Amino acid sequence: MGMRAGELAMEFATVGLDDDALEAARILAAAGRPALIVLGDDGLPYTVLPGSQVLRFVLPQYVQDDPRLARVYDEQSADALGRGLSGRRVRDVLREKPDVDDIPVVEADATAIEVAAVMARMHSPIVAVVGDGRFLGAITVSRLFGRLLPTGEAPQGSQK
Amino acid sequence: MGMRAGELAMEFATVGLDDDALEAARILAAAGRPALIVLGDDGLPYTVLPGSQVLRFVLPQYVQDDPRLARVYDEQSADALGRGLSGRRVRDVLREKPDVDDIPVVEADATAIEVAAVMARMHSPIVAVVGDGRFLGAITVSRLFGRLLPTGEAPQGSQK
Repeated sequence: MGMRAGELAMEFATVGLDDDALEAARILAAAGRPALIVLGDDGLPYTVLPGSQVLRFVLPQYVQDDPRLARVYDEQSADALGRGLSGRRVRDVLREKPDVDDIPVVEADATAIEVAAVMARMHSPIVAVVGDGRFLGAITVSRLFGRLLPTGEAPQGSQK
Repeated sequence: MGMRAGELAMEFATVGLDDDALEAARILAAAGRPALIVLGDDGLPYTVLPGSQVLRFVLPQYVQDDPRLARVYDEQSADALGRGLSGRRVRDVLREKPDVDDIPVVEADATAIEVAAVMARMHSPIVAVVGDGRFLGAITVSRLFGRLLPTGEAPQGSQK
């Protein structure tokens, strides 16, 4: 039968919609992940919040349009990130109510290939796993590869 | 002056264009990252290869279009990933030659805000850093947050 999502799921950092946005950014930093899972008021995954989206919220549009202009902007503040998030909640940082089909989430009994298909379809490095009406954990693409790939020699990849 | 990209850069898993695609997937699994940096023949960043792109290459289109169909497909193979990558090179898995403006890369003297702007603009969790004509390392969004955010109490985020 192969591996199921419930067995592949691991602990993953989450935040609530009404949590402090600055705290959320700190949690992301501490977790060392590219994104957080945002849980809705029902405790189920509401969306995935990529760190890059937090930056989009904080940085002025002209800096995003032309990152070279950041050098001008930078003179004023290395703490723009903190100031931009201060007093905000996670829900303020999100772009809009995500469409239910755009949330990378699977049931605990989903097959590993189903998990892979959701990642591929949504260009997502993370899939949330739910079961019995609650959030169980998440599966990263690296974990999926680690479990799905046929064993071979240890990777020789260059680390730089 | 604030932190510069060269100081923020850290070791990051890379692969070459002609490296074996299956080995690349194993390297991604071992590195525990959402993506790898692909170096071109000149040793400079050519593109970022997200794990989800590897899955897009391997999985049949009908499974990506409707992940529920994965259950049918799954019956045949949990090792579809290995078979789909076997004998392929990294360059085969890439979609097309990336436009130079679409590669998240900065010079070592880029400011932290410039790094943030590149991440925001390209929706990328990783930025490659180059200097003196070579790849120096990469900056993840979590590392950037860890360095840019004003210090506060330790994050209390729920880990699930």
